[in-house]
Amino acid sequence: SGLVHIKNPYLDSMEEDVLYHLDLGTKTHNLPAMFGDIKFVCVGGSPNRMRAFAQFMHKELGLMGDGEDLADICAGTDRYAMYRAGPVLSISHGMGIPSISIMLHELIKLLHHAKCRDVTIIRIGTSGGLGIEAGSVVITDMAVDSSFKPRFEQVVLDDVVVRSTELDEDLAEELLACSKEIPDFRTLIGHTMCTYDFYEGQGRLDGALCSFSSEKKLEYLKRAYDAGVRNIEMESTAFAALCGLCGLKGESSCSRL
Amino acid sequence: SGLVHIKNPYLDSMEEDVLYHLDLGTKTHNLPAMFGDIKFVCVGGSPNRMRAFAQFMHKELGLMGDGEDLADICAGTDRYAMYRAGPVLSISHGMGIPSISIMLHELIKLLHHAKCRDVTIIRIGTSGGLGIEAGSVVITDMAVDSSFKPRFEQVVLDDVVVRSTELDEDLAEELLACSKEIPDFRTLIGHTMCTYDFYEGQGRLDGALCSFSSEKKLEYLKRAYDAGVRNIEMESTAFAALCGLCGLKGESSCSRL
Repeated sequence: SGLVHIKNPYLDSMEEDVLYHLDLGTKTHNLPAMFGDIKFVCVGGSPNRMRAFAQFMHKELGLMGDGEDLADICAGTDRYAMYRAGPVLSISHGMGIPSISIMLHELIKLLHHAKCRDVTIIRIGTSGGLGIEAGSVVITDMAVDSSFKPRFEQVVLDDVVVRSTELDEDLAEELLACSKEIPDFRTLIGHTMCTYDFYEGQGRLDGALCSFSSEKKLEYLKRAYDAGVRNIEMESTAFAALCGLCGLKGESSCSRL
Repeated sequence: SGLVHIKNPYLDSMEEDVLYHLDLGTKTHNLPAMFGDIKFVCVGGSPNRMRAFAQFMHKELGLMGDGEDLADICAGTDRYAMYRAGPVLSISHGMGIPSISIMLHELIKLLHHAKCRDVTIIRIGTSGGLGIEAGSVVITDMAVDSSFKPRFEQVVLDDVVVRSTELDEDLAEELLACSKEIPDFRTLIGHTMCTYDFYEGQGRLDGALCSFSSEKKLEYLKRAYDAGVRNIEMESTAFAALCGLCGLKGESSCSRL
């Protein structure tokens, strides 16, 4: 049907669904009218950057006006920012798995309530690169954890549930084909490693704490490279797991800072 | 000495330390002049709320001006917001452990570079309550994980390191004593549970995914209550672990939404 799959037996019997962190709700907003025609959702960490992306899309799509005054649809909250340009929704998710997870739960319910069909979701964030040129774009074929395994461990109450982090292969190939039309930067397909920590988790030597040697760091990053990892960020495994479970065609493509 | 402890042998030999997510640095900013006299740091998730808190402190401290035009010290980035009112710094940390960890690493280095002494750090966020009235404030005596254990599991490269989540007991008692002067809301000392997920991790029945029954949820929350948990949020274990390791006198006191 192309609809989003909500896997929550309680949801449809709720009188009202408040998407608290988006400052939207089923009683306060006409979600089908506001979002029913959305076909693409692009997400990234920074609110300013997601605003700039919506303005860019506005121009690319040749929409009326200069797109400079796009309104933040979530203006009533400062947790996330959301803009739209035609069929494209552009939303910020903050940094890290817990932050993107809250946004995705509420976004997926939004798409469900709005009866959206055939939605493609793409994470377009920044990342650290592994053995690739600065400015390269990595299209993720597989999101892996800090042990290079394609899995996301979700704590449900006090149980740990392991979820798959597969992304849409055809979409990755399609994005790679599109990138060939743009000669300004290198684009490649590779594994993306997702960590819970920026400093100690990604082998940085400049955090407030650093208990490993430069050699140990390099040895770890080499193992990651040998396992197929080409970039490192902090959201992809949760993104892949949630989108996959809810039937959203998802991809992650991050540029290396 | 009252100084912050940096546990990183590389840091002091670095020519420049860029606090990237705060848009500050040792070469671009005179950190001792800007921050050397800071004695209190208050942190919370929302940038708007931390701005309002700085304005409130500005008034409470009787500082010059009405405090309405406080400048965001991190204005060059939208990752975090930072304001100061006299000796009080007020900083946002976004949602979840990865997000607060990035901020804390850079804040701790900032306090180190600025040669601050005897700094007290307090998380003043919101939380869900367990068996307590809405509007109550919980002062955390112990931050626990989703198994009710006072520990924080930090992934360092691909090793898991277990860290203590003790907070400053005297500070908790001092805050409780202060609260007795304010009759408008209830304040109590209790354990704070920290989860990686807002929906499935905290037993919510209204996420995009929900695989447990209402009974299972209640049974889990009852076990948490019986273990001494009085509120649930998403940052306290990492906050306690990092502050503890770096010698910062830390406390978490969250109001129940």
